[in-house]
Amino acid sequence: MTASRTIRHKAAAGKIPAVPLTIEGYSVLHQMMRFRWSAWRQLSAAQRTEIASEAGRLLGQWEQAKSGQSAVYSLIGHKGDLMMVHFRSSFDELNRAEMQLAQLRLNDYLEPTTSYLSMIELGLYESSLKTYHELIEQGIEPHSEEWKRAVKEILDRQREAMRPRLFPEVPNARYISFYPMDRRYAGEVKQIITGSIGFDDWEWGVDLFADDPLVFKKLIYEMRFDQVSAVYAQFGHFYIGVRCLTKDLVALLNGEAPQ
Amino acid sequence: MTASRTIRHKAAAGKIPAVPLTIEGYSVLHQMMRFRWSAWRQLSAAQRTEIASEAGRLLGQWEQAKSGQSAVYSLIGHKGDLMMVHFRSSFDELNRAEMQLAQLRLNDYLEPTTSYLSMIELGLYESSLKTYHELIEQGIEPHSEEWKRAVKEILDRQREAMRPRLFPEVPNARYISFYPMDRRYAGEVKQIITGSIGFDDWEWGVDLFADDPLVFKKLIYEMRFDQVSAVYAQFGHFYIGVRCLTKDLVALLNGEAPQ
Amino acid sequence: MTASRTIRHKAAAGKIPAVPLTIEGYSVLHQMMRFRWSAWRQLSAAQRTEIASEAGRLLGQWEQAKSGQSAVYSLIGHKGDLMMVHFRSSFDELNRAEMQLAQLRLNDYLEPTTSYLSMIELGLYESSLKTYHELIEQGIEPHSEEWKRAVKEILDRQREAMRPRLFPEVPNARYISFYPMDRRYAGEVKQIITGSIGFDDWEWGVDLFADDPLVFKKLIYEMRFDQVSAVYAQFGHFYIGVRCLTKDLVALLNGEAPQ
Amino acid sequence: MTASRTIRHKAAAGKIPAVPLTIEGYSVLHQMMRFRWSAWRQLSAAQRTEIASEAGRLLGQWEQAKSGQSAVYSLIGHKGDLMMVHFRSSFDELNRAEMQLAQLRLNDYLEPTTSYLSMIELGLYESSLKTYHELIEQGIEPHSEEWKRAVKEILDRQREAMRPRLFPEVPNARYISFYPMDRRYAGEVKQIITGSIGFDDWEWGVDLFADDPLVFKKLIYEMRFDQVSAVYAQFGHFYIGVRCLTKDLVALLNGEAPQ
Amino acid sequence: MTASRTIRHKAAAGKIPAVPLTIEGYSVLHQMMRFRWSAWRQLSAAQRTEIASEAGRLLGQWEQAKSGQSAVYSLIGHKGDLMMVHFRSSFDELNRAEMQLAQLRLNDYLEPTTSYLSMIELGLYESSLKTYHELIEQGIEPHSEEWKRAVKEILDRQREAMRPRLFPEVPNARYISFYPMDRRYAGEVKQIITGSIGFDDWEWGVDLFADDPLVFKKLIYEMRFDQVSAVYAQFGHFYIGVRCLTKDLVALLNGEAPQ
Repeated sequence: MTASRTIRHKAAAGKIPAVPLTIEGYSVLHQMMRFRWSAWRQLSAAQRTEIASEAGRLLGQWEQAKSGQSAVYSLIGHKGDLMMVHFRSSFDELNRAEMQLAQLRLNDYLEPTTSYLSMIELGLYESSLKTYHELIEQGIEPHSEEWKRAVKEILDRQREAMRPRLFPEVPNARYISFYPMDRRYAGEVKQIITGSIGFDDWEWGVDLFADDPLVFKKLIYEMRFDQVSAVYAQFGHFYIGVRCLTKDLVALLNGEAPQ
Repeated sequence: MTASRTIRHKAAAGKIPAVPLTIEGYSVLHQMMRFRWSAWRQLSAAQRTEIASEAGRLLGQWEQAKSGQSAVYSLIGHKGDLMMVHFRSSFDELNRAEMQLAQLRLNDYLEPTTSYLSMIELGLYESSLKTYHELIEQGIEPHSEEWKRAVKEILDRQREAMRPRLFPEVPNARYISFYPMDRRYAGEVKQIITGSIGFDDWEWGVDLFADDPLVFKKLIYEMRFDQVSAVYAQFGHFYIGVRCLTKDLVALLNGEAPQ
Repeated sequence: MTASRTIRHKAAAGKIPAVPLTIEGYSVLHQMMRFRWSAWRQLSAAQRTEIASEAGRLLGQWEQAKSGQSAVYSLIGHKGDLMMVHFRSSFDELNRAEMQLAQLRLNDYLEPTTSYLSMIELGLYESSLKTYHELIEQGIEPHSEEWKRAVKEILDRQREAMRPRLFPEVPNARYISFYPMDRRYAGEVKQIITGSIGFDDWEWGVDLFADDPLVFKKLIYEMRFDQVSAVYAQFGHFYIGVRCLTKDLVALLNGEAPQ
Repeated sequence: MTASRTIRHKAAAGKIPAVPLTIEGYSVLHQMMRFRWSAWRQLSAAQRTEIASEAGRLLGQWEQAKSGQSAVYSLIGHKGDLMMVHFRSSFDELNRAEMQLAQLRLNDYLEPTTSYLSMIELGLYESSLKTYHELIEQGIEPHSEEWKRAVKEILDRQREAMRPRLFPEVPNARYISFYPMDRRYAGEVKQIITGSIGFDDWEWGVDLFADDPLVFKKLIYEMRFDQVSAVYAQFGHFYIGVRCLTKDLVALLNGEAPQ
Repeated sequence: MTASRTIRHKAAAGKIPAVPLTIEGYSVLHQMMRFRWSAWRQLSAAQRTEIASEAGRLLGQWEQAKSGQSAVYSLIGHKGDLMMVHFRSSFDELNRAEMQLAQLRLNDYLEPTTSYLSMIELGLYESSLKTYHELIEQGIEPHSEEWKRAVKEILDRQREAMRPRLFPEVPNARYISFYPMDRRYAGEVKQIITGSIGFDDWEWGVDLFADDPLVFKKLIYEMRFDQVSAVYAQFGHFYIGVRCLTKDLVALLNGEAPQ
């Protein structure tokens, strides 16, 4: 926070830009859906298997994709029955994934309850200041063409160095906890994974992955207990899901919870 | 509150951890549902009995379970007709119970209105401080491996000692009052039963059980009248139900209020 | 307010209990419903009369009941077409009334929009202090068994004396204005009729009855204009209804507004 | 505002009543509705004309009424397709109008989205003080029977003098902007037309009529820019409609926007 | 902001009007809709093509219009599947466009989720002051007839000069980000495109157009990071769409995301 305060201080003096640098990776769409069990059960077992298999093939390809994976979760509670998480390289591709899902016959049994659109984001809070310092020491004039080119070069380098964190695989954990939040710009933000300013109704969307859900509680509890978070952080709805590999999708749609 | 203030004081000095210790028991899911009376009445008496009996068998097993029980309540007002409360040993099992209910034919007549996901929680507010004190007196360095092992041992011991409160049976009372709430960390919280930070949209979910509903009013009234609560506590919706044993489920679904 | 401040003052000194005494009467349920006119009109006149008469018989019994009456109102605006107000001696009986209504064939044409659960409540704000004073003057130790017994005796006596106000008939006025509210404990509350702390989402539910609806406006206007209320009182939705005696129910369901 | 402050000042000294006087005229109901275009288009042209004409006859009578008119507006945007504004001499008559509309066959194609219940109100802010002054100068004791009689006489006289403003015709303007608002009692309120304290969820409902909708924007912009309004005024949803005379109702329901 | 503060200062002294001048251009309606994929897929391919082509012809004319264009976007997420943006010369014409869309057979497959009504607006913040200054220097008395005529002339001149910005074509960018916002009058507002005070529930509606959606994030991030915006600006929901030219509408409705 000292660093970011210094940036603000210098920024106030008009010397360097006030906004911390960020770099972005995957475009991300969370889709929460309710499943129409009553209508589904009116189908024959053969029809159900056929429809679920068709969906399983598409989702299976996305689950196994070398880059830009998707994952399916069985949600707990009334906020939805299924959550799909899509990692893609652009908003175009997210829109395409959404449209492809809408063409599945399974779609007749899915009702969207909510969704969240964001981009994986790394905030260069500490290094923004360092970067600006170094450029100034090199005698580069803030806001000049040279400055902009230098900043862009640094960002490109960082983006390359942090590639695995910007373009990750979906973690293998059993549980997911997803929630949107605002932090009102009070110092560093540690739990942020995807930024959604300008895309959706909160500033960040956070995904936590764990094999023991108690981890979620401990982590958020500590964050809330902290004076700064208690005052500045606001949380949206929480979505808790159990991972369902697409090989288990037919079983899930037969009413069997994920193994 | 003195104790927790002292913890904060020491914590501020960086000596001991700031977050009070908690231990967890059952995973808990509350499901509120509306019942489709019109569609239900279009069935023959025989069909209704068959469907209600099927549901009664599953719910009866859960009601009588040695551990991890479920209970059914007839809700008063428009927020729902039925509330099911499930105590289970993991989120996996809650998801499984939810899926099993969804496969019942009765499910065609149930509409989810809301739900709440949490874990039974005991806050070791007073004893956190005592624990930390004792460890320091034993010369154990805060945050060291030895410290962590010692804290874990103490928690394990407490968990064992408080087993009946962490893994309770559903109380036999006639009425239930359920509500979620936040307390904003202002001292000890006495009415807390389940914690939901990181799982659902409020910090705690509280269940009160009584044979006279006036008890609920007196209790919450006192809590609200108290200066601290009036400022720091926020309450979600209140759900009031009358217990319906599964032996009376067929009668309930024939329109007879619980005996 | 002077009295209640003195209580708080003494209470702060730990001498007497801080919470003003209340006594309770009828359990009360307000049910707001929309009427499915389109489906209703598809019935033959004979069917409509039969279904409305069946409902009229049940509601007529409740309207004429010696104790624990119900009343029907034709609501103005989109918040609902009908409002039923039930006075009963327990929550069990409210649940039973609700279930009996759900079994009527008329129920197929009713959609619940909202409801409110509360108990008729008289706050003994002034007399709490007087009571505590007298007990202290008699040398009775606050919080002792003797104190509790004395308080209970006084409450029983008050309950008996105020029986007509705790267990009233439904007033004969043409109009009703119902709204829930919070007062945040700022002195005496004069308009309170039913308390709902611990039962529903607001602290009180207020019913006003009048033959001229302008009375409602004048009354609430004065309350809001008052500095204290303006700051401390919060109001929920307002529901305005025209009384419909059950003898006019068939006509109402034929589209004739209450005479 | 000086006048109203003086009233408060005197009121605080307990000399004169604190609440400014108001006089009331028509009872007013706004009904916003969505039109079921898909179902409507499935009717034959003849059926559509018949149903629209039936509605047109009733609405035409109300539009041409010597007193207590109704008007129809084609709403812009998703908040509804039609808005009906009813001026009536009592809540009874509003309830009757509502019921008569519900009996039209057109009602099968209308879905209520919201509504607003209020009374045309003139606030005698300046003259309240003058009135009180004069009475005091005449030596009449505040709150005495004589005082009340004198105040009532003055109100009756004002009501008679302001008859055209209390019982107006629906203005002939092409556009309407309706919105509910609160003002938190900060001085004079100029834009108020109907009061709804005690009747609906905001303090006032405002109707603006104009042939150029830009007038609405300029007017509210000035009000919001004003320091006092910016702090004290809160606005509900805005509803913008284009007047549709009932002679054009059949055309409107054939998909032609008002001429 | 200095300029606007000076205006306020002079305005406070009663010398010049307090409200900054604005000039208006197109009336604008945003319509967000969900598409009924399940019902749509039950049509034959021939029917789908016919219905989509009918819609394409109308929307194509609007897309190509010399003035007052419309554009179609494929929305990402659950807030809707399609967004239509209409630029028209009056509210009458917006109502007409809305009615024409409602008559399309495609309308049976569209559900409105929300909408937004506004007017393209340019705030003459800086030049208001300059204008007032010049008039005062010319010896023209504020609020006089001469003053009003002079202001009107200046506005007419500005409106003519800024015609291209007041009556723009829909930009050719691939992505759109639309959101409503309030700014509470804290200095100059730079991102404002359409004003909606008096028309809809927020003060402004903002449309951003870009070929790279990251631009939206950077832009809003900077705005939020700015101290003034962080305190005074409030944002509504964000809607992100991918432009779909009407030549691609048939493909879109066959489930192919925009090329």
